[in-house]
Amino acid sequence: MTAPAAALASAPIIPPERLPPLHPAAPDIQAVEQAAERIRGEAVLTPLLEVPAANAILGGRLLIKAEMLQRTGSFKFRGAYNSVAALAPDVRARGVVTYSSGNHAQGLAAAAQAMGVPALIVMPADAPAIKVENTKGYGAEVVFYDRYTESREEIGERLANERGATIIRPYDEPNVIAGQGTCGLEIAMQAAAKGAKLDAVLVPAGGGGLVAGVSTAIAARSPGTPVFCCEPAGFDDTTRSLAAAEWIENDPAARSFCDALLASTPGRITFTINARRLSGGLVVTDAEVAEAMRFAFRHFKIVVEPGGAVGLAAILAGRIDIRGRTIAVVCSGGNVDPALYSEVLAGG
Amino acid sequence: MTAPAAALASAPIIPPERLPPLHPAAPDIQAVEQAAERIRGEAVLTPLLEVPAANAILGGRLLIKAEMLQRTGSFKFRGAYNSVAALAPDVRARGVVTYSSGNHAQGLAAAAQAMGVPALIVMPADAPAIKVENTKGYGAEVVFYDRYTESREEIGERLANERGATIIRPYDEPNVIAGQGTCGLEIAMQAAAKGAKLDAVLVPAGGGGLVAGVSTAIAARSPGTPVFCCEPAGFDDTTRSLAAAEWIENDPAARSFCDALLASTPGRITFTINARRLSGGLVVTDAEVAEAMRFAFRHFKIVVEPGGAVGLAAILAGRIDIRGRTIAVVCSGGNVDPALYSEVLAGG
Repeated sequence: MTAPAAALASAPIIPPERLPPLHPAAPDIQAVEQAAERIRGEAVLTPLLEVPAANAILGGRLLIKAEMLQRTGSFKFRGAYNSVAALAPDVRARGVVTYSSGNHAQGLAAAAQAMGVPALIVMPADAPAIKVENTKGYGAEVVFYDRYTESREEIGERLANERGATIIRPYDEPNVIAGQGTCGLEIAMQAAAKGAKLDAVLVPAGGGGLVAGVSTAIAARSPGTPVFCCEPAGFDDTTRSLAAAEWIENDPAARSFCDALLASTPGRITFTINARRLSGGLVVTDAEVAEAMRFAFRHFKIVVEPGGAVGLAAILAGRIDIRGRTIAVVCSGGNVDPALYSEVLAGG
Repeated sequence: MTAPAAALASAPIIPPERLPPLHPAAPDIQAVEQAAERIRGEAVLTPLLEVPAANAILGGRLLIKAEMLQRTGSFKFRGAYNSVAALAPDVRARGVVTYSSGNHAQGLAAAAQAMGVPALIVMPADAPAIKVENTKGYGAEVVFYDRYTESREEIGERLANERGATIIRPYDEPNVIAGQGTCGLEIAMQAAAKGAKLDAVLVPAGGGGLVAGVSTAIAARSPGTPVFCCEPAGFDDTTRSLAAAEWIENDPAARSFCDALLASTPGRITFTINARRLSGGLVVTDAEVAEAMRFAFRHFKIVVEPGGAVGLAAILAGRIDIRGRTIAVVCSGGNVDPALYSEVLAGG
C-alpha cells in the first residue's frame, strides 16, 4: 500500500451541501453524558496507556485507549449496558435479542446478565470460538447463521417477535452509539489530565457506532481535534462512503481476519453522524494489522484482537503522520483465539 | 503437586524469638511514601484490574495489579527510578551499574536515561532476547556473564569501581525496596476505592525486594491483611527460609522458565523484612504458571511473563482458597519473548 498519510484537517470531509440529513434518532452529547451516568461503576474506566519507549520509536506521542480491558474484553459493553439500562423495567424483563459477530454479543449478554434479564444472540457460524464460548458463559442463548448467505437481521427480528423481546442492534441503535461515546468522553478527560493536546483520534469502524459516539464526544470535549475511522482493506465502506458522501457497500467477496469489522455498509444512523464529524478514513491491510498486534504485545503488553488494532496499524504503516504530534488510538478489543494470536506473534 | 491451601492467618509465619535481627538499612513506611513522591509522574499508576467473569469462575474476587503496564514492562522501574533519583547529583552524574536477569536491567536503564546519566548492566548470557534488546534500547551498555559459573556481583563491583559509578542492586538496596513498596501503597488505595477489603495480597518473589516493599506498605495501609510471597518450584528459597527462620539456598541444579525469579537465596536486607511481614510462601510449578499466563490472556487481555504469573498461578492451582474472599495479586511483568508466549498459548 502506498496511500499518502492523511492530512490533519479538523474540518469534516464532506461539504455541508452534500451531507445526508442527520438521522432523527442520532444521539447528541447529552445522550452520551447520560450514558456515562448509567454505566458508571458497571463499565471499566479503561486506562489511556502511554509508553515512552514507543513514543521514542515513533517520534510522537501515542496514547492507547485500552478497551480490551473493558468488561467483556471490548468497548461493546458500554453501549449494550446503556441500552438495556434505558429500557422500561417491564420491557426489559421480556429480554433482549441481537445479532453480532461476537463482541456486541458478549457485551449484550453480560449487560443482560448484570440486570438479570434473558438474552438471545444470533451469531455467525464462523465467529471466533472464544467469542461464542464467552457469550454462552454470560448466560445467553446462542443461535447460529451463515454470514454469507443468511440475513441476521431477519432471524433476529423473527425471534424477538416470538418472545416479545427487544432488539438491541450492534451499532444502528441510539443508546448503543451514546454508550460507545463514553469512551470518547474518557479519552478527552484522560488526555487533559496528562497535559496532552490531541492532534487526532483514531477509531476502528465496522458499522460505525464506536466512531460515531467517540466523534460526538470529542467534538464537544476536544473541539477542533480531527477524528478518523480506521478500517481493514476490503471493508473500507465508511471510508469510501465518506469520500462519496453516500452509502457504499463492500464487495461481498472481500475477506479479512478483522472479524469484528465485517459490516457490509455504514449504518443508517451512524453514517449520518460520521458524515458530519469525521475528517476521513484510514485503510490498512491484514499484514499491517498483524504488525500492530505484535507492536502492542511488545511495547504495551496488551492483547489486541485484529479488529481492535486497525487504528494502531494506521499509525505504524504511516497512513497518518504521528511525528511531533499527539494521537489517541482506540484499541477496541482483545477477544482473539489463542491459536490465531500465536500465529500472529510467530509472523513477526 | 498436592500442597494444601495456605491458611489466611494474618500473623507473620516466624515467631518473634526466632526472627533474624532487622537489617539496619531496611526501609520503613516513610521511605516508601518518599519514594511515591519521587516517582510520581514518572512511573505509571498501574490499574488494579477486575473481571466479573473471572470472579464468577473463581467464586471470589480477584484483583490483579497490572505491573506489565508499568514503564519498562515490569514493576522494576519503581525501585530503579527511586534509587537513581535519591543519589546526590554529582554521584548520579558518574552513572549507575547493576546486574540483573532483565527486568531490573530495563528499569534501571530507563531510569538512568530519564535522568540523563549513563547505565552499565551486567546480564546473564541466557536472558530473554527481548530484555537484552530493550535494555540496550534504553541506552544502557550491556556486559554478559554466565549465570551458572560466574559471579555477577563481582563483575558489577569491578566495573563500578573502574568508573566511579554507583551500584544499584536489584533487590538488596534500601531505595529499591522502598520504590517497589509504592506498588503496595497503590494496591491499598485502589482496593479501598473499589470498596474491597483485602483478605490477602500475593506477590512474586525472586530476591524478595517487591514483596518486602509491598508488605511494608500493606502493613501500614491495610493492617491485618496477610501477604504471601509466591515462587516457582525449585526457586522457593524465600518460602523455605520463612519456614526455617534462616537463609536457605536453592539447589544450583534447579531450573524454571520463570527467568525473573532465579535468585539463589533471599536478600540480606529483604529477608529480615519479609521474616517480619509475611504469612508464608506459595510454590507453583512451571506448568501451573503457564496455565496462569493463559488465564490472564483469556480473561484479562494482558501479557504476563512467567515470573509475573506465579501469584495468579497460586490462586488457580488452589494453593490459597479465594472462594468467598478478595485477593489482590501482583502480576509483576510482561517482558516475554513472542516465541515463548506462543508456545505457552499453544500448550492450553
